[in-house]
Amino acid sequence: MPSPELLARLGELSDLQHAGQVLAWDQQVVMPPEGGAARGQALGAIQSLVHDRLVDPQLSVLLDAERADTQLVRAVRRDHDVARRVPGELAAEMARAGSEGYEIWLRARQANDFAVFEPALRRNIELARRYAECFPKAAHPYDPLLDRYEPGTTTAEVSALLARVRDGLVPLLAEIAAEPEPPALSGEVPIAGQREVGLLIVRAMGFEDGAWRLDDAVHPFAAAPSQRDVRITSRFEDSSLMGLFALMHEVGHGLYEYGVDPDLARTTLDSGVSLGVHESQSRLWENLVGRSEAFWSYWLPTLQEHLPGAFADVDVPTFLRMINVVRPTLIRVEADELTYSLHVILRFELELALIDGTLDPGDLPQAWAAKYADMLGIEVPDDLNGVLQDIHWSEGIIGYFPTYAIGNVLAAQLWSALRTDLPALDDDLRAGDYGDLRAWLVDKVHRHGRRLTPAELIQQAVGGPLDPAPMLEHLGAKYRALYGLT
Amino acid sequence: MPSPELLARLGELSDLQHAGQVLAWDQQVVMPPEGGAARGQALGAIQSLVHDRLVDPQLSVLLDAERADTQLVRAVRRDHDVARRVPGELAAEMARAGSEGYEIWLRARQANDFAVFEPALRRNIELARRYAECFPKAAHPYDPLLDRYEPGTTTAEVSALLARVRDGLVPLLAEIAAEPEPPALSGEVPIAGQREVGLLIVRAMGFEDGAWRLDDAVHPFAAAPSQRDVRITSRFEDSSLMGLFALMHEVGHGLYEYGVDPDLARTTLDSGVSLGVHESQSRLWENLVGRSEAFWSYWLPTLQEHLPGAFADVDVPTFLRMINVVRPTLIRVEADELTYSLHVILRFELELALIDGTLDPGDLPQAWAAKYADMLGIEVPDDLNGVLQDIHWSEGIIGYFPTYAIGNVLAAQLWSALRTDLPALDDDLRAGDYGDLRAWLVDKVHRHGRRLTPAELIQQAVGGPLDPAPMLEHLGAKYRALYGLT
Repeated sequence: MPSPELLARLGELSDLQHAGQVLAWDQQVVMPPEGGAARGQALGAIQSLVHDRLVDPQLSVLLDAERADTQLVRAVRRDHDVARRVPGELAAEMARAGSEGYEIWLRARQANDFAVFEPALRRNIELARRYAECFPKAAHPYDPLLDRYEPGTTTAEVSALLARVRDGLVPLLAEIAAEPEPPALSGEVPIAGQREVGLLIVRAMGFEDGAWRLDDAVHPFAAAPSQRDVRITSRFEDSSLMGLFALMHEVGHGLYEYGVDPDLARTTLDSGVSLGVHESQSRLWENLVGRSEAFWSYWLPTLQEHLPGAFADVDVPTFLRMINVVRPTLIRVEADELTYSLHVILRFELELALIDGTLDPGDLPQAWAAKYADMLGIEVPDDLNGVLQDIHWSEGIIGYFPTYAIGNVLAAQLWSALRTDLPALDDDLRAGDYGDLRAWLVDKVHRHGRRLTPAELIQQAVGGPLDPAPMLEHLGAKYRALYGLT
Repeated sequence: MPSPELLARLGELSDLQHAGQVLAWDQQVVMPPEGGAARGQALGAIQSLVHDRLVDPQLSVLLDAERADTQLVRAVRRDHDVARRVPGELAAEMARAGSEGYEIWLRARQANDFAVFEPALRRNIELARRYAECFPKAAHPYDPLLDRYEPGTTTAEVSALLARVRDGLVPLLAEIAAEPEPPALSGEVPIAGQREVGLLIVRAMGFEDGAWRLDDAVHPFAAAPSQRDVRITSRFEDSSLMGLFALMHEVGHGLYEYGVDPDLARTTLDSGVSLGVHESQSRLWENLVGRSEAFWSYWLPTLQEHLPGAFADVDVPTFLRMINVVRPTLIRVEADELTYSLHVILRFELELALIDGTLDPGDLPQAWAAKYADMLGIEVPDDLNGVLQDIHWSEGIIGYFPTYAIGNVLAAQLWSALRTDLPALDDDLRAGDYGDLRAWLVDKVHRHGRRLTPAELIQQAVGGPLDPAPMLEHLGAKYRALYGLT
């Protein structure tokens, strides 16, 4: 057992993070907009208390005094070491630059002009490079940035992985793009009906009432101030089912936090282990479950009942083609299951070049356009539909994008392992029963929290390291069947 | 100017209080109920950070270093001195006992049995007495308890004040009780219509959009994490207009926080100065504005439009009698403008006896029944409608009740001063215009925040100390007219 003093400190850290999550959720979901300035101050105060506590030398003394080098000690030591390396002034300047960068990005979007944003981007890149310099032993300056979101994963590993993904997807996309477009969704899909169906699906996926809630948010996200307090958001539109898939995606994130071993509560281990593993959960539910034939063979009648008119004459095969249209597009968050990873990979390649200095921030729009032409074969008409679309860089979030692609890769690996372990999985999905599926995910992924490293977790769940083959195989088989390719 | 280090500390304190307010609001309004246990921990962590910072000896050093004994220094010194006197273990035990007492109180209410609650009450009384002992110079052990909610006001002052209120109200009530009952509200008042009217009234009262929100809550309250983030709650029922008056009440609280001088933001001075002064604002809007002939001569047509049917044939005089029924009842929160103070005064007298040891907690139900028979002339049928109705004592909140009566007294004093300063007040109310009224309240009460003490604030606003005469005069005149007494 860890010492009571160590546990008390970790409990307080967890309580502060709980407060920070509630303040952030509140700001995005319910806060009167005029409250923003004071909220920024309050969130900053909580973050700096967390930082102060993480870097406290006494924490290191307490860790040294532990008799065993447990998973808990290892995780706390890691957080302490990372936080200690970054001077307080740099951390504060990054927070300030991120907050100001976000405001400048909003203005640049209004003006549809990258030039407005460029100085803020330049500053964030510069700060990210200074951050990386705090870790002189890193093989690549991008490593410490990536490590914030995908602990223990290196730039070399991700580069190799994503190159294989790109090389598999680009030719598959070319094959599909040559085919005629499948039927599109026509007519209105009223939000109220989508929400009703969404709530039925969420309950079937596994939350117990009283331990979660659903709200609207401009940018859907999931938060879990505590394990029995999971907050899902989505954004329904009456012209598409995107909000329904965003809902399943966010519930995937929520179920991960919900499934962490309750014994880990109020320790450093009580959350998902990395953004990539988190994204594997959201993508698995959104795409591998939520865009499958077996899933909709159960739910299509319910959807037809709650959205009368829209799908009256649509059968499951037709519906599946509707929700699995592949099309090179400009906007990442609207991309389909296949092209999504390409949007992410090109951002990874660009931020790598920005960090290693081979790309000047001023040249980003041209580089962006070249990547879209090369990978997706489309022309970028303006900055709003190009380099200004994502919030990440404005807030100094660099090293995050590849975790989306890691999530897609891992989701397919987990799905492949699941199919082996659960031979009746398809029958379950056809019956709207997710009990065994969720139990498997809890056992292999959720319950561990941060006890295992991402690499350890992946190894024990799928029997090997990250591997794009299952994803490429899944996408190839799925789309060749849907598009009637040979 | 206070030193930057002092201001930084006060800013952090304010940020922590902001976080605590959001966590508490969230818990009562939106949190999934299963999140309660973890939320209790997180709120406790924030409270103990606030306490640690308040008692920090370095804070005292910084205060000593200030060149001038400003209002800010005085207020911070006060908070520091009070917090320093109470040992950390006692504060923690009070928090624990309050939280456990609340759970026990809920069980006692389910069983409708005071005996279940008695041990928790005994413990809270004992802890309150130990708290009082930390202030050996107090003239009465109740003084330090009262001082938590009404700084600088003594038990002797409140006893004298409330005795005069009681002696004025009891005979007036007897006169009215002898009269036939006025017409009652009949029929349904749909919640949706009440909410529409309520929102119109709130906007007219003075909030700007984007700086406030309205939600439902079982026990209506107002919170203001920051000045431009005011959160009102109410509870509408389709059988009465109580929710509409609760709404005006809570908006009165909200407008106080909303009107504090923005220059005081993130200092110790940036909130209402005492619960009594706060309650004067809520009661003024709820009763002196909201139950007046002038107010409803403007709003009744709107109410009739949004609640068709319920008031179709009702004129203003009849409506006024409906919303001003005086009747001795068992439940404080449902009491009318006249009897309300009596409910409060008897609780004050009981808690005074509990604290000075002349009443044993085991004898409370009998003492409670005797007071209700004596002051209100009614019999208490059971504990749920008697001693178990209020949450306060379960959480160790002792010394709070008298602030409700102080609020009623002060509201009438302010109203009297207002009528002198604003001769056109009645015309304004008849026109639905609250601009001058609110400007007066901002000038005399709101903007000062905690710059003045409650006594100083009352002196400059009404030209003298607390005085029950205006309230007794107002109630006498109002009800004699409504009930046709001579």
